[in-house]
Amino acid sequence: MKTISRNNLIATALIVVLVFIASMALATDQLPSWNDGKAKQSIVTFVEKVTKAGSPDFVPVAERIATFDNDGCLWAEQPMYFQALFIFDRIKALAPQHPEWKEKEPFASVLKGDMKDALAGGEHALMEMVMTTHAGMTTEEFEKIVKGWISTAKHPKTGRLYTEMVYQPMLELLAYLRANGFKTFIVSGGGIEFMRPWTERVYGIPPEQVIGSSIKTRFEMRDGKPVLMRLPEINFIDDKAGKPVGIQQHIGRRPIAAFGNSDGDLQMLQWTTAGSGPRFALILHHTDAEREWAYDRTSSVGRLDKALDEATTKGWTVVDMKKDWKIVFPSMNE
Amino acid sequence: MKTISRNNLIATALIVVLVFIASMALATDQLPSWNDGKAKQSIVTFVEKVTKAGSPDFVPVAERIATFDNDGCLWAEQPMYFQALFIFDRIKALAPQHPEWKEKEPFASVLKGDMKDALAGGEHALMEMVMTTHAGMTTEEFEKIVKGWISTAKHPKTGRLYTEMVYQPMLELLAYLRANGFKTFIVSGGGIEFMRPWTERVYGIPPEQVIGSSIKTRFEMRDGKPVLMRLPEINFIDDKAGKPVGIQQHIGRRPIAAFGNSDGDLQMLQWTTAGSGPRFALILHHTDAEREWAYDRTSSVGRLDKALDEATTKGWTVVDMKKDWKIVFPSMNE
Repeated sequence: MKTISRNNLIATALIVVLVFIASMALATDQLPSWNDGKAKQSIVTFVEKVTKAGSPDFVPVAERIATFDNDGCLWAEQPMYFQALFIFDRIKALAPQHPEWKEKEPFASVLKGDMKDALAGGEHALMEMVMTTHAGMTTEEFEKIVKGWISTAKHPKTGRLYTEMVYQPMLELLAYLRANGFKTFIVSGGGIEFMRPWTERVYGIPPEQVIGSSIKTRFEMRDGKPVLMRLPEINFIDDKAGKPVGIQQHIGRRPIAAFGNSDGDLQMLQWTTAGSGPRFALILHHTDAEREWAYDRTSSVGRLDKALDEATTKGWTVVDMKKDWKIVFPSMNE
Repeated sequence: MKTISRNNLIATALIVVLVFIASMALATDQLPSWNDGKAKQSIVTFVEKVTKAGSPDFVPVAERIATFDNDGCLWAEQPMYFQALFIFDRIKALAPQHPEWKEKEPFASVLKGDMKDALAGGEHALMEMVMTTHAGMTTEEFEKIVKGWISTAKHPKTGRLYTEMVYQPMLELLAYLRANGFKTFIVSGGGIEFMRPWTERVYGIPPEQVIGSSIKTRFEMRDGKPVLMRLPEINFIDDKAGKPVGIQQHIGRRPIAAFGNSDGDLQMLQWTTAGSGPRFALILHHTDAEREWAYDRTSSVGRLDKALDEATTKGWTVVDMKKDWKIVFPSMNE
């Protein structure tokens, strides 16, 4: 076969494949769990304009960075942050090795099942529980603990695995953005190493695209083998004004789209939308007491107050969970 | 056209394209600036075994993480780290706004061109120069300064732009790994925001895959616009035992291949090779006084001593720059 005719054949073949892929993409609704309405339309309009070659709003693939909060944005966060439930479960699991906890707060309250009393000690008590359950082991040991918990622990109200309490419409949104050349990141106040063991499997987001709060680690040799020891000392809090800092540290580039649900995401949305060119900001409003939870301005978990006002004045997309979503969780009969 | 025949056509077309791509890959030497020898062979053998489907050493694409030191590994580092030369140039540029520097060390020595005297003040003097030139502006302002410098400043010995003092064989190695599904990261003791403005253009490594040392930043509103202010306070030193810590923070996954040239990379190589499954570690030994520089155990810049011993005992690949590289820098007549 001559070179020219082979090249022609290849070119033709490529065109056939590309046209087929394009026609498939046009024919299928990639956000099937979203009801038609302003929220869905605003997402599709944004994605179409930044991906349309030759458009004044076109954004090169390398700059298509999208950041997502996790708690209350990709998975649920009621009756309290799931990582808090992990902490309580770990304290119960470790209790046999700590008989003194029966008399010692905040551990005594946890063991009695009084979670509110356990949290009554404020930040100091919370930090003590965090460090007891998150530090003092290697990164590999902690990863194993998280993997074990996440694959077995059940939500107190729904009885589902926590990874089954992710939002189906948001899974579709992540996939839709990636299909359009976006790189999707998590930017969460939750622990970075608490998320990484399962985000790739559940969200399709690899560990290097997860940003979160962290404790310090130290490299050391243990029996001639290098390990990273987790130390009982805060390294970084990836919440509120910390989110743009975390984004810059990890990504080094401003997102063009950001997705959140609480005041903890406000600065991320401000930072994202303050860049030049097309920008997209979305807030998920929890309005669905039947299928999920309804809460906003006065909730102690995931409070949405200032960010809701700013969304209105700045014209950010606000998703009304009850109206905008056909289903909430994957494969549930609703 | 019926569905079945269309699918058949598409399948045939895809096969034609894939066979063509595969035959191209087999036919071309992707490391043309590397002389045939043990070093080149060890790289190719490793890449072939981890990418061969069905092989016991096969590594899924998501886990093909490769980390590279920058100074002395991807670009040169003599007569001193290029970021130090950036600092001196910035001090000279800022001097008109600081008449007091004429009398004040270490600035006075820099302005007189006595770089050794400027560094004689030890860590305290160095930190003063770093913070004066790296902090007190926004992240966007600093990016602009770096971009301006990197596109104009010339190396004192070669007269080349610093980005023309990257190693051609390493550029080929980066591209070869990426063509084989690897994600390539920089893990450098240098400043993370000093590298990010140019690594994508020069190395094909996007900002989110650059790990380095950093100062703290603070999110604030300036005239109603959010900015990240660079503060005169160390955040993280990504060198020696800091490298595995930085890798875990940013990537959250252990690399399967790591590339360095000095004792500053030793812990990264130890951490990388201590994982299970196939592992690759490489040290670039600067042995070429004619085309580049020759230095190792006693050099104050890029000292290679302990890591050279450990490379021998552990069987890591050691590249002899003089013997293993056909050319050093891109498009030079040598």
